[in-house]
Amino acid sequence: MQHYFLNQPISVGDQIILNGETAHRIIKVRRSEVGEVIELVDHHQKPYLAKIIALKGNEVLVQAAAESTMITELPVEATILIGSSKGEKNEFVIQKATEFGVRRIIIFNADYSIARLKSDKIDKKLERYEKIAQQAAEQSRRQVVPEVVLVDKLSDVDFAPYNKRLIAYEESAKKGEKTVLRTTLQGLTPDDKIVMVFGPEGGISPMEIGYLESEKFTACALGKRILRAEGAPMYFLSALSYQLEMN
Amino acid sequence: MQHYFLNQPISVGDQIILNGETAHRIIKVRRSEVGEVIELVDHHQKPYLAKIIALKGNEVLVQAAAESTMITELPVEATILIGSSKGEKNEFVIQKATEFGVRRIIIFNADYSIARLKSDKIDKKLERYEKIAQQAAEQSRRQVVPEVVLVDKLSDVDFAPYNKRLIAYEESAKKGEKTVLRTTLQGLTPDDKIVMVFGPEGGISPMEIGYLESEKFTACALGKRILRAEGAPMYFLSALSYQLEMN
Repeated sequence: MQHYFLNQPISVGDQIILNGETAHRIIKVRRSEVGEVIELVDHHQKPYLAKIIALKGNEVLVQAAAESTMITELPVEATILIGSSKGEKNEFVIQKATEFGVRRIIIFNADYSIARLKSDKIDKKLERYEKIAQQAAEQSRRQVVPEVVLVDKLSDVDFAPYNKRLIAYEESAKKGEKTVLRTTLQGLTPDDKIVMVFGPEGGISPMEIGYLESEKFTACALGKRILRAEGAPMYFLSALSYQLEMN
Repeated sequence: MQHYFLNQPISVGDQIILNGETAHRIIKVRRSEVGEVIELVDHHQKPYLAKIIALKGNEVLVQAAAESTMITELPVEATILIGSSKGEKNEFVIQKATEFGVRRIIIFNADYSIARLKSDKIDKKLERYEKIAQQAAEQSRRQVVPEVVLVDKLSDVDFAPYNKRLIAYEESAKKGEKTVLRTTLQGLTPDDKIVMVFGPEGGISPMEIGYLESEKFTACALGKRILRAEGAPMYFLSALSYQLEMN
């Protein structure tokens, strides 16, 4: 079933006219037909089942039929903080991390970032990244589109919202560290907000590790192998889902 | 530390001349210098620390200094069976699944495969895929280069080696299934061989599900969201690592 974000109130029984990009996707991309049931998510992240009543030009008329009971959000809010990598790698991580359930993606210029975010192009880049997150959220049937935040430096990020703070650190994997991730994930409760920091292709610098440790972050391994920058966030989010959702 | 597969016997104290692609990567790509310590893996998958003694032309002379104690292989052999997707997606899965610890990757033409493996191009494709696996295995510091196998149809695959058999099935996620993966992974012992089947972009067909179920496969969910074909194997391998290595 297709899934669209509406950003407006919905009540069961409402007839709603969809237009713009959403209508375009229903009519042209998905080629949906009258009678098909789709899922719409309202401004409060509540999903509804809705039936297509009519298709006319660039508009779609739907009727909200019932609240959907499907909850597809991770039970704990997870944020990833990633050092900026080359353009398509940032985009890849945004797409995949969204599918894997992340709530916020913060991209920063790391000490070893080769491809830095440039301030004059940041609005365009953010717009593009937000679109990728929205499409991945719809495709994976999320109730929430993750927030994408671009910052200049690691020290620009306010860590106050996060009470669980981890760093993915390959030196931890090399030393055989293997308890921090599990201990942290097992101890999570629904009000916790967890953040994990990932370096860019070149890794995270000793200076950045020092700064994060002074901010009460703990370095940890993600398995025993050395994962590339674009794969490591998927390990973290998979482990989070496996620990909290799969039992 | 850099990591290279040697496919030959190594004993501590041996002086070994490296040439060909391995030497090229040490000299030209990594620009390593005399005195640097690298890791070499012998034909029995045993890793050794080795010191670079001399660099001359296209050859590198190294001395094996000690056995390395690092074990980076998953404690249970995991195979993934993936429906062929577009070329770069197959390559992506081979690279990432190798980093995440897979032992064998079997690619088959699925009912809904849009990009099928063609028999006249299969040798070239296999060569390319094997190279991707080797490079990813070196980069992630594996002791084993995963085997890549290309087959025409699902029914060409012999499942006898695998005593644990799962299918990643999005209908299971939609129905809220959440215990099969955990129950299976928690019950694994070192002699088990686990295989999981993943559909191509278009998903797995009802006919394929029926065939696999007749072969004693069980459908299961990977979290609550709908993952794309190229992401789902990473969830499975992460969960396997998290369950078996991280405690």
